[in-house]
This record gives sequence, structure tokens and C-alpha cells, in this order.
Amino acid sequence: MKEQLYTYHQLYLFAKNIFLQIGCSEANADTAAKVLLSADLRGVDSHGIARLTGYVRLWEVGRINANPSIQIVHETPSTAVINGDKGLGLVVAPAAMQVAINKANNVGTGWVSVKNSNHFGIAGYHAMMALDHDMIGIAMTNASALVAPTFSIERLLGTNPIAVAIPAGIEPPFVADFATTTAANGKLEILQRKNEDSPEGWVQTKEGAPSTDANELKKGGALLPLGGDKEHGSHKGFMLGSIVDIFSAILSGANYGPWVPPFPAYVPMPENLPGEGIGHFFGVMRIDAFRPAAEFKQHMDNWIQRFRSAQTIPTESSVIIPGEPERKMEAQRMNNGIPLHQAVIDDLRILGAKYHLEL
Amino acid sequence: MKEQLYTYHQLYLFAKNIFLQIGCSEANADTAAKVLLSADLRGVDSHGIARLTGYVRLWEVGRINANPSIQIVHETPSTAVINGDKGLGLVVAPAAMQVAINKANNVGTGWVSVKNSNHFGIAGYHAMMALDHDMIGIAMTNASALVAPTFSIERLLGTNPIAVAIPAGIEPPFVADFATTTAANGKLEILQRKNEDSPEGWVQTKEGAPSTDANELKKGGALLPLGGDKEHGSHKGFMLGSIVDIFSAILSGANYGPWVPPFPAYVPMPENLPGEGIGHFFGVMRIDAFRPAAEFKQHMDNWIQRFRSAQTIPTESSVIIPGEPERKMEAQRMNNGIPLHQAVIDDLRILGAKYHLEL
Repeated sequence: MKEQLYTYHQLYLFAKNIFLQIGCSEANADTAAKVLLSADLRGVDSHGIARLTGYVRLWEVGRINANPSIQIVHETPSTAVINGDKGLGLVVAPAAMQVAINKANNVGTGWVSVKNSNHFGIAGYHAMMALDHDMIGIAMTNASALVAPTFSIERLLGTNPIAVAIPAGIEPPFVADFATTTAANGKLEILQRKNEDSPEGWVQTKEGAPSTDANELKKGGALLPLGGDKEHGSHKGFMLGSIVDIFSAILSGANYGPWVPPFPAYVPMPENLPGEGIGHFFGVMRIDAFRPAAEFKQHMDNWIQRFRSAQTIPTESSVIIPGEPERKMEAQRMNNGIPLHQAVIDDLRILGAKYHLEL
Repeated sequence: MKEQLYTYHQLYLFAKNIFLQIGCSEANADTAAKVLLSADLRGVDSHGIARLTGYVRLWEVGRINANPSIQIVHETPSTAVINGDKGLGLVVAPAAMQVAINKANNVGTGWVSVKNSNHFGIAGYHAMMALDHDMIGIAMTNASALVAPTFSIERLLGTNPIAVAIPAGIEPPFVADFATTTAANGKLEILQRKNEDSPEGWVQTKEGAPSTDANELKKGGALLPLGGDKEHGSHKGFMLGSIVDIFSAILSGANYGPWVPPFPAYVPMPENLPGEGIGHFFGVMRIDAFRPAAEFKQHMDNWIQRFRSAQTIPTESSVIIPGEPERKMEAQRMNNGIPLHQAVIDDLRILGAKYHLEL
């Protein structure tokens, strides 16, 4: 499929101007555009500017508040619950992370559960906010239900990602950022575009049978928890996705399980909502609340170097340290530009025309 | 294979008396026996009394201190690092969890990283200590390296389990407790006893080739991270195991990666150790540091009931709520007794004879 390269700055400006046009403040438009584009830079194309139209549609139907009043509704020295006031998750999440960082500064760690928010882009961006402060960052979110728990034929969980960012010394930081499913939905979309089958263990049919049809979700099927089936540990992926759901939504008062609001604005909202909006959970731990940061980083360097230099299977040259491929991609795309599929470009141009902006 | 039933009390007394014989205090022997036996009760036979001889052997070679002085070596209002003084992990872990609970009482959450400890039994026991306080409990530990990271042929990580215990209202608590590998080593041992093959994705040969030989570890092979291979998300299992390793050992100053001391006393210690003993990590979050506990529990009940009543594949009657099978097993074994394999009984009788105790 045809692709075109855009500079980071071009896409950042376009996204920021769209956010300004729907009524975001200058600061919020800047943050939202940065968070969104960080996904494109890091190669997580499914969560980047390709979703801009989706966010705007949610605003158009009144499900996103462009000018939220983001409030702490309950707190202790190390915890807070934040009401996102229906704001863009792209804006609510960094605000919540900042609260967690402040608490970690004060008492060693900070833990923030968020309700009444929307999709927050890539979890990794938020977790990585902690790195500059010599802190470990954790970010997770629930999402609309696409995943069938082990033995279920109903979709009850989102892909519920977890990100953990850990500072190192001379080595780049360790940054894990992964959906708690065998494969994220974005990987299925790539196979759909190529008209290819998916590996076993990624999806099941609506009757719960194993399937390799990359279009299974459109036929009522479901994504599978990490592990794929019980024999391969899918109950563990289910537990992980459940923990993300509970920390993000039951601690905060957001919607959970099958009641999480869908991202596409045209999909009807679930009925009898038990909470408000979607939920996130953030954690920050100050390294020197445990041991001197310099000592910790020296051992992280040692850890990273030992794992990177492990003997590998013949077809691979090294073990991949979490975050390394995304960091390389970011450097490369910042220099050479970000490739967009023609379908995404067309979609953004229609959006731009509506708001008198050119891409 | 022949099995015999013992009452909980018989096995508890035997284990406690052994711990007393090697010099544990009354209180520590009681705790150690309770933690050890909780594994047998919950059906995690690989981590229960079958390991008693292993713990004693570690004491015999001087790697376990029966009378440790467990000390906080650094702390902030929400964090602590604890030096286990080479104590039994079975004793060090509950002490560390208690510190985390106290901190959660004071400032909302408590996070404790532990060095210079030993194997701590099942992670779930420690996480569940939080439940009676209306708190969420988290427990993890690193362990000696049996797991090859994605693309590696070297064993660099332990099975590094994670347990998360979350209180509910009228429903029993949600208790996840799982190794970050496709299957725990205990499951392989069951197949070995039955002379059966393992499913694909559990182990690889020492050259890194896929294998279904349940005896592969004895031939230099490795367990695989949850996911099995890259196509099925094993890099996610690798990330999870890595996070457990880093939180448990690099935050505290314990050994990590391939340097974690082995459980069998006859296996030589790794050289050039970067830390002290093995590491654990514990977290406790007070529910009402986020929202009123009664509200939270009501939503947990709703969550559990919705997931338990999900439509299932034809061969299964319900989705398994994490912790439910173990809770049922515990009730059943507390009533009817704990079955031990003849090989375990023989081993315990030899141990008993050495310390003038009868089983």
C-alpha cells in the first residue's frame, strides 16, 4: 500500500491545530499532539495520528470535553483518585502522572487511579515521564472489550496495556510497553491490510473455536489473552488484563469489563454503566527511596549488558532489551520522517478540510 | 504413583518441629511452617512440604541463617529496603509484608524491596496478608535462572512469579498467583512423573530449538517466558519476568538474572555475585486511600459475578475467577487431608530420622 513521509513537525502541527480547533487550550493541544505523535515516532502506528479522527469524532458526539477541569477527588500522601472530567486521555494521563511524580518526591512513591477519562495514546509515553526524575514509571489503562477471558466466548476485557519505564546509567532506559493479549489489535490490522492469516493463539471465533482469520473480530470473534489458550498460560494473560482493569477502574470509579466505552464514536455505549468513562492507573517510585540512584543505575547497566550479550539462537543476533527497538525507531523517524499509509492521509485530509487545515 | 493422606496439622507440626530443630525461634518456626503448608493446602505441591528437605540442606551448607536479624536498611514514608540476613524467605517475606502494611496504614501504600533472602514459598500467601486489612497485596520474587529470554539460549531469569490479592465483598477475594513463564516448573515435574511430553511452547533445547521433552531442563534446555515464542508474545513474558527481577533485586541490592543463588544446595553458587541473596518485592495499597472500601468491594463483587457468568465454550461451565480453584482446594484439603507422593514421604522420613522426628 502507498505510503508518504511527513516530518514530525508537520504532523505535530496538524494534530495540535486540530486540537486547538475543537477548543483545547494551547497547553493541552500541545500535550495531546505530543503524546499522540510519540506513538508514530516509536512505531506504534495504530495509536498515533491515525487515531486523530477518532478522537475528534468522540468530541463531536459529546463524549470528549475539550476543556476538562481535571480534579483530585480523594488523596493520601502516596495516592490519589483523579476525575478526568471527560477530557482527552492524552491530556488527563500526563496530568495524573505529574501528580504521581509529585507524591513520589514527597513520600517515595505515588499511585494514581483515574476515572472519567478517554483513550490515552501509548502507555509508554506516560511511564517514561518518570525517567528524567530518576524514578520508575508505571502506566496502564483499561479499554473497550475485545478480549475473551480463558474459556469465555464473550469479550469482557480490553487489550489493557501495561508500561514500565526504568532508568539506567550509560545504557538507555528499560521501557516495557505491551498489551496483555497475545498480540495487540494493531498487529491484526497489519495482517488485514496484507490479506494474511494470523498465527494461532491470537484470535478465536465467536463460538470460541481457535482461528487464524485476521478478520475474526469483525465477525464477532475475540482477541485472546497473552498465552492464547489454557495449555499455554492464557489464564495468566487473563489475570494480567483483569488486574489492569481493576486497578484502573474499580479503584477509581471508572467503567470496567464489558462496560468500558468503545473508542469508535458510532458504536453505541454499553447500558447500565457502573462507572464514569474509562480508567487508568499510574505508579511512580523514586529510585533513591530504595537505594542511591547511581548505584541502582550501575546495576541496571550491568543487567542490560548481560542480557544483551546473551548467546542467541542462530537466526538472531541479540536478545532485545525492552524499549530498544522503539528508541531506534524514534531516532530514525525523527530524522527521516514518519511514513503514513495513503488511507490515513486521505482520512486526515478530510478531517483537515472540515477544520480548514492543510496536511 | 502411590499417595498417602496426611492432615494439615500433622504436616504443620512436622515442618514446625524441623524448623525448631535447625534453630528457628518458636514464632519463626510457626510462620515458616504455615507459609510452607499454605502451598500444599492450595494445591501448589511443588512449593510446599516437598521442599522442606531443600530448605534444611541450604541451612546445612550455611546458606540459610535460622536466626536472622531482619532489618530495614533504608526507608521513606512509603518505601523500605529490607536486609533478610540470609533468613528463610518463608520468614523474611511475611516480615517485609508487615512493613508494607504498616506503611499503607500511614500513607496509603507501602512498597518494600528485599535483599539477602531465600526462597519464600508461594507468592500468593504473602499477597493475601493484605486482604484482612482491606488492602490490595502484591508479592513477587526472583529465583534461580531456568528461563531463556526470547531469542536467548542461555537461562537468565527465574520463573519470577507475581501474586496480586484484591479484596471483594460477599464474593471471595480475587487472588492471582502465577509464574511469568508459559508453565511453572512444577507442571513439568508432574509430566516427568507420568512420563508424558509437554505441550509446545513450554521448553526449548539447549540449542534453542522448540521441544516437547518434559526432561529438557536436565539436558541444558530452558523454560520459556509466558507466550512461548516471539510470534505468541514471549517478549511480553520476558518483560514481566525482567520487571520482577529488577524490582526484587536491583531496587534492593540482591542478586539478579543469572546470578540468583540456586535452590538446590548441591548446585554451586554463581561466581562474581553482584548482590546479596535472592530478592523479593512487596506492595500494599489501602483500598480507602482511593475510595471507600465498601464501594470498592461492591464493584468487585459485580466484576466477579459478571466474569463468572460469562458464556463459555461448550466444554467448560464457567470462566475461572483467579484464586477460586486454590480456595476450593484449600477447603477440601483442610477437611480431607493433603495427599503426599510416596517419594516425598520417603524423603521427609529420612529428614525426620536425622532430626529425631516422626512423620
